[in-house]
Amino acid sequence: MPDRISRMVPALEWGRSYTRETFSSDVIAAVIVTIMLIPQSLAYALLAGLPPEAGIYASIAPIILYAIVGTSRALAVGPVAVVSLLTASAVGQVAESGTAGYAVAALTLAFLSGAFLLAMGLFRLGFLANFLSHPVIAGFITASGILIATSQLKHILGVDAQGHTLPETLASLAGHLGQVNPATVIIGVLATAFLFWVRKGLNPLLTSLGLPPALASTLTRAGPVAAVVVTTLAVALLRLDEQGVRIVGEVPQGLPPFTLPGLSPDLISALLVPAILISIIGFVESISVAQTLAAKRRQRIDPDQELIGLGAANLGAAFTGGYPVTGGFARSVVNFDAGAETPAAGAFTAIGLGIAAIALTPLVHYLPNATLAATIIVAVLSLVDVSILHKTWAYSKSDFTAVAATILLTLGLGVEIGVAAGVVISVLLHLYKTSRPHVAEVGLVPGTQHFRNILRHKVETDPAVLTLRVDESLFFVNARFLEDLVQARVAERPDLRHVVLMFSAVNAVDFSALESLEAINQRLRDQDIGLHLSEVKGPVMDRLRTSHLIGDLNGNVYLSQFDAWESLCRSDKPARAAD
Amino acid sequence: MPDRISRMVPALEWGRSYTRETFSSDVIAAVIVTIMLIPQSLAYALLAGLPPEAGIYASIAPIILYAIVGTSRALAVGPVAVVSLLTASAVGQVAESGTAGYAVAALTLAFLSGAFLLAMGLFRLGFLANFLSHPVIAGFITASGILIATSQLKHILGVDAQGHTLPETLASLAGHLGQVNPATVIIGVLATAFLFWVRKGLNPLLTSLGLPPALASTLTRAGPVAAVVVTTLAVALLRLDEQGVRIVGEVPQGLPPFTLPGLSPDLISALLVPAILISIIGFVESISVAQTLAAKRRQRIDPDQELIGLGAANLGAAFTGGYPVTGGFARSVVNFDAGAETPAAGAFTAIGLGIAAIALTPLVHYLPNATLAATIIVAVLSLVDVSILHKTWAYSKSDFTAVAATILLTLGLGVEIGVAAGVVISVLLHLYKTSRPHVAEVGLVPGTQHFRNILRHKVETDPAVLTLRVDESLFFVNARFLEDLVQARVAERPDLRHVVLMFSAVNAVDFSALESLEAINQRLRDQDIGLHLSEVKGPVMDRLRTSHLIGDLNGNVYLSQFDAWESLCRSDKPARAAD
Repeated sequence: MPDRISRMVPALEWGRSYTRETFSSDVIAAVIVTIMLIPQSLAYALLAGLPPEAGIYASIAPIILYAIVGTSRALAVGPVAVVSLLTASAVGQVAESGTAGYAVAALTLAFLSGAFLLAMGLFRLGFLANFLSHPVIAGFITASGILIATSQLKHILGVDAQGHTLPETLASLAGHLGQVNPATVIIGVLATAFLFWVRKGLNPLLTSLGLPPALASTLTRAGPVAAVVVTTLAVALLRLDEQGVRIVGEVPQGLPPFTLPGLSPDLISALLVPAILISIIGFVESISVAQTLAAKRRQRIDPDQELIGLGAANLGAAFTGGYPVTGGFARSVVNFDAGAETPAAGAFTAIGLGIAAIALTPLVHYLPNATLAATIIVAVLSLVDVSILHKTWAYSKSDFTAVAATILLTLGLGVEIGVAAGVVISVLLHLYKTSRPHVAEVGLVPGTQHFRNILRHKVETDPAVLTLRVDESLFFVNARFLEDLVQARVAERPDLRHVVLMFSAVNAVDFSALESLEAINQRLRDQDIGLHLSEVKGPVMDRLRTSHLIGDLNGNVYLSQFDAWESLCRSDKPARAAD
Repeated sequence: MPDRISRMVPALEWGRSYTRETFSSDVIAAVIVTIMLIPQSLAYALLAGLPPEAGIYASIAPIILYAIVGTSRALAVGPVAVVSLLTASAVGQVAESGTAGYAVAALTLAFLSGAFLLAMGLFRLGFLANFLSHPVIAGFITASGILIATSQLKHILGVDAQGHTLPETLASLAGHLGQVNPATVIIGVLATAFLFWVRKGLNPLLTSLGLPPALASTLTRAGPVAAVVVTTLAVALLRLDEQGVRIVGEVPQGLPPFTLPGLSPDLISALLVPAILISIIGFVESISVAQTLAAKRRQRIDPDQELIGLGAANLGAAFTGGYPVTGGFARSVVNFDAGAETPAAGAFTAIGLGIAAIALTPLVHYLPNATLAATIIVAVLSLVDVSILHKTWAYSKSDFTAVAATILLTLGLGVEIGVAAGVVISVLLHLYKTSRPHVAEVGLVPGTQHFRNILRHKVETDPAVLTLRVDESLFFVNARFLEDLVQARVAERPDLRHVVLMFSAVNAVDFSALESLEAINQRLRDQDIGLHLSEVKGPVMDRLRTSHLIGDLNGNVYLSQFDAWESLCRSDKPARAAD
């Protein structure tokens, strides 16, 4: 089955048509991405509470594995901000940052996450990610951005502080304000200001100086590298580390080591739920980026194969000293804009980072943590977008409720509770909306065969016949609502002899709704009232025929509502045709 | 606001028109129900792990309170089998049966359950009960019936055994088979056989002997009383209690005491979730019975007022030595059939049970537990209905999955996990079904203005135009599905210039779906393809107009699909009208 194999290993497909031109495009993109990734990888490792080299390691094997089995041609896999925060939160609950146990737990988290993603992909469960609604994701990303930026303030101030929620972190920072390190603050504030300026002001400046846009944009992306170089030199030359400026320090030189995740039952049971959460959030972030980029070139992403690609990448991270990874937004866009044409660009990036791991690590010895924190703050604040609040407010109050709850709960109770609550709230709100479907009493528009809402149109009705049009599929959440509604309407009208349910907008009837219809039928029979159905769609009717409802119906099924009207309201025929 | 008051206290309404005839109907019903309730109350208390008098107490104050604020005219409130089992399971986790702490925890459970029901009623949250689908309820009741019957086997055998799940209980029984008490087994087996015979064979026999049906049916209901009298006399006269037959023993004489539920934070936090579960299951059981009976007389039930009625009943139980109660199926049907016309019948039943509590308790001293267990077994086995399995199998595989999972998990892991898993599974299956809506590519039926599925009909199409009809409201669960689908279809067709989404079956578009439509629009624009909408319903269009989608649309909104066809396929006009 060569087709199946090339679907499972997309590299076989694009590898076949690989040319010299594609190669040079890919190499150029790889160089640009590598330069961007070195400081970012160190910074995200710091955010995750891991030694800096873990960030580099997490960018090497995962990129290569994704390049072989992933379907996106431009996605760049590696550590990202939100997943790093989730890692810190999850691993922080089982081990102390800086210990060997912490690093092992991070490997375990990557392993579980990889296994879960792989299983989801093999069982084709990619649709589960859809349970995260857009507003919940937007709210979660915004709140995470705020949490991450706040968590980095301790590095800018040069103090120790902790906390998994906004109030905890702020309280902890406030309690340590007495220990602020002046030299660190100077470096941190200057680096942050510089990086903000690079992001907002450098590109327009370079363009106005006459540089070609592509070069201007590449130089802008090298901003963090410039900040790293300048602050590292400043610390090294002025020996600011002796003034209390915390630095990256010794980083082991060499390629990623072979590591084994810890697989004790205790560790697994403590990390399983966070691993699932990380997997789903990582997958949602990754697939959104991959789809956006693929569409620009009319390419296709297979969500289930993407799960397999991300699963392989995380397993790779688990065995090479990394931690959970996913497709990052910023790095993928850079890769795409820089001209990457195939996943081989990723492999070349991995080679670049491998060279960095072997040769460049001694150079970052004096790199101050404050600079890395500045990199993170500037990167994540671009994720913060409170406009989702007024956008959803204007469009739909229930979507607004879901966003607002997700933001508040994430900030107040932490990332895991925040996102879980967001999912539950959006599912409940959706079910609540469908639990009270629109039901209109309809009558005949005079001179036509059309039936419309009696409240909005001038229509003919018959006091002995009640016709209700149900504008929603019937299932367990709204089944009892229909029972209540019919019973309430019938109790109001003592002269009633027939109820007609018009099913033109009913796409499905589940077993609960079937039983409710049977109960309605039985109750109406007890009251000597006929129950009729009209305009039942083919597939719904096929299913209803497998039940007893149609046979036991205390009335008829009419093809059209007009037939029902003709038979029940206009004729002198006995009204209850079946009993 | 007299209307509002009479809605809150329905007793004011029926009390006004109370006549001598209604009074005598109510008294007769009360006598019949009282005779039935005495052994049943003792038995359910035993099932709940409480002293026998708790069952009587739980039937007095709750009935009176429900009579004042409930809306059903025939519902009889008190201990029921499933709630007794749930009580035993919940309270058993915080205290040892037979201790004072156990009884106090049962009061707390009733208090929390009452408070929760009252709050649900006041906030009009009755719709939450709809999250329990009919198959989940049916599966849960069947599995509970099996669990309860099995749990009573220890009383029939006269051994000690324990367990909250079927395997636990069976294993525990098997381990105690050596201690079986022969005298107990004889009483238990004979009582069980007698009660089964009464239920199946007595009524037809009496009728064939020429008794009027009403009398035959009343005598049949007195069967458990006969079993109680005979076995009690047998034990008392033969002093079988000295042979190891366990008996009810000393039961305090007197009206229900005033009691206080324990309200320590630890106890509350341990019992809160079980209390919520008991409330919802009790409410669902009660409302189903109340609605069925009310419909028979064209009366109405107000679900939110029912919550208040059941809440008051449970608070009453908490302060008078009872435990959680709800409207019972068997006792309500008996009450109704015996001719109860108003809730006053309930109050008279309470008086009857009060007299029993004062005068009759010494008489049950020698009543063997085996007889009570026989009463329970015969009652609950009528709840067991495995036909729900093949009914759902025939009708819908996803409903079958929900039932089967609920039954297996309830039997295997206990009542609380079973019902919670049932709810979660049915919600997930429903969302899964709506996550992959039916989407048809449509074309023009020649000679008409109708558009139908190209796979089922011979229709005209245009290679440059793709028209998709979406047969489901769009919301977060299926939003990404639509993105994937459009992208996949577009990637297949290089000549494509227009995509038309036909919205005739879309009743709502939530914010996630709006963003998906914006993403689809953006991606199609990147590929130089127009995106058009047709047949958008009024309310959907109103909402879409509050967003940017319509203004930014890379195409037009057409009133009818035929207009879209005319404009995009037949004319020489520039195809992209808006950009």
